[in-house]
Amino acid sequence: MTRWKLTIEYDGNPFVGWQHQKNGLSVQEALERAVLGFCGETVRVHGAGRTDAGVHALGQVAHVDIERRTRPQTVRDALNAHLRPLPVAVLAAEPAPDNFHARLSARERAYLYRIVNRRAPLALMRGRAWQVQKPLDEMAMHAAAQVLVGRHDFTSFRASLCQARSPVKTLDQLSVVRDGDEIRVSARARSFLHHQVRNMVGTLKLVGEGKWTRDDVATALDARDRAAGGPTAPADGLYLVEVVYPA
Amino acid sequence: MTRWKLTIEYDGNPFVGWQHQKNGLSVQEALERAVLGFCGETVRVHGAGRTDAGVHALGQVAHVDIERRTRPQTVRDALNAHLRPLPVAVLAAEPAPDNFHARLSARERAYLYRIVNRRAPLALMRGRAWQVQKPLDEMAMHAAAQVLVGRHDFTSFRASLCQARSPVKTLDQLSVVRDGDEIRVSARARSFLHHQVRNMVGTLKLVGEGKWTRDDVATALDARDRAAGGPTAPADGLYLVEVVYPA
Repeated sequence: MTRWKLTIEYDGNPFVGWQHQKNGLSVQEALERAVLGFCGETVRVHGAGRTDAGVHALGQVAHVDIERRTRPQTVRDALNAHLRPLPVAVLAAEPAPDNFHARLSARERAYLYRIVNRRAPLALMRGRAWQVQKPLDEMAMHAAAQVLVGRHDFTSFRASLCQARSPVKTLDQLSVVRDGDEIRVSARARSFLHHQVRNMVGTLKLVGEGKWTRDDVATALDARDRAAGGPTAPADGLYLVEVVYPA
Repeated sequence: MTRWKLTIEYDGNPFVGWQHQKNGLSVQEALERAVLGFCGETVRVHGAGRTDAGVHALGQVAHVDIERRTRPQTVRDALNAHLRPLPVAVLAAEPAPDNFHARLSARERAYLYRIVNRRAPLALMRGRAWQVQKPLDEMAMHAAAQVLVGRHDFTSFRASLCQARSPVKTLDQLSVVRDGDEIRVSARARSFLHHQVRNMVGTLKLVGEGKWTRDDVATALDARDRAAGGPTAPADGLYLVEVVYPA
């Protein structure tokens, strides 16, 4: 048996999300079917981040145990062949120690949220970004984002269905930069609560529009009440960029 | 009557190209239908660049004459409403002088060609880039590209169906840069021959693979024979980025 660490890219649009659901195909199930097709083994693939329906990944990480002995390039290429024509690609397959766990061993996760800030609808970025028509002040958004950086009780930015034991998390980075029409929000933490990035982005959008101030964000955080936070930004703009493990 | 200058973004995948074709929907026809839906006028929309099937645009420019008097924002928003759900977006509509012609007045066109250089298939970039599996030497590609910059007879890089009167063009820029897995080829000229960018990119790929040298590119250019040039790169990776007009 070899434990494999897989690095995975996917377009979230056609999937019900990372995790198994009864109502449609998940990325997890697509990968498990590909392993079955490749080596005839029924396996469970464990992902580092349970991305929601419509959320994309540039660098999701998963682990899976496979009995058949094979080379890393073969695992990558065979899984990609069996994943076709789904928009999921195994970028790398590496043998990992038996105690490696994609979710539990992760030291840091990085997400990117892409906003396209313009009047015209999205053509090339449809389903890949959040179109916001009103002009946003990205510098005000960045300043307000700094209120959220650090160790806090993030209940105000936590989905009601969130299963995490504690709402206390340490947010290492939350930065907002503009590149032309596009505003990019980058977030880094050891782990995030369910919908935390999308709820923070929905809140920062209120700041960008001038409806909320930096102080309003601080007040919302202090309230420890989901009703005090801003709305949830759509899944379309969210990308799981990277999962970092101890060397 | 007002002549309108339109700046347009589109995903080339569902279209037969910019120009009217009997075998399917073109971007030109989609825009003409949108004008008809908006103001009941049957018009001809003239584009700056006749992009092929599958080629994308971030900033195509077109002009159209409309009788109905209306404001720029209304033209933009109404056309976008009538274009839905096609992946075409009018980014801007501006009144232009009566002698403005999207194609004939253009002083410069800029194209981008995106290559994703990796083993794994494309998930998020499918239909939006050319996947090349063999590692490419982008510095060799850039050096060889400089052979093509300047005023030359580009017959070796011209589609057999090209209708341009002369094969002599001045290529202002052809640069190749890498950003991780992605290689970006940027090209600028007053105008290009049919398939010129894709034929130059297909040739530079041979250099990146080590199959051709910089001298081979010079020899191909000097041959003034399409059979001497490299193969045509796929449409997927090509973007019309910008069309520049005199101030």
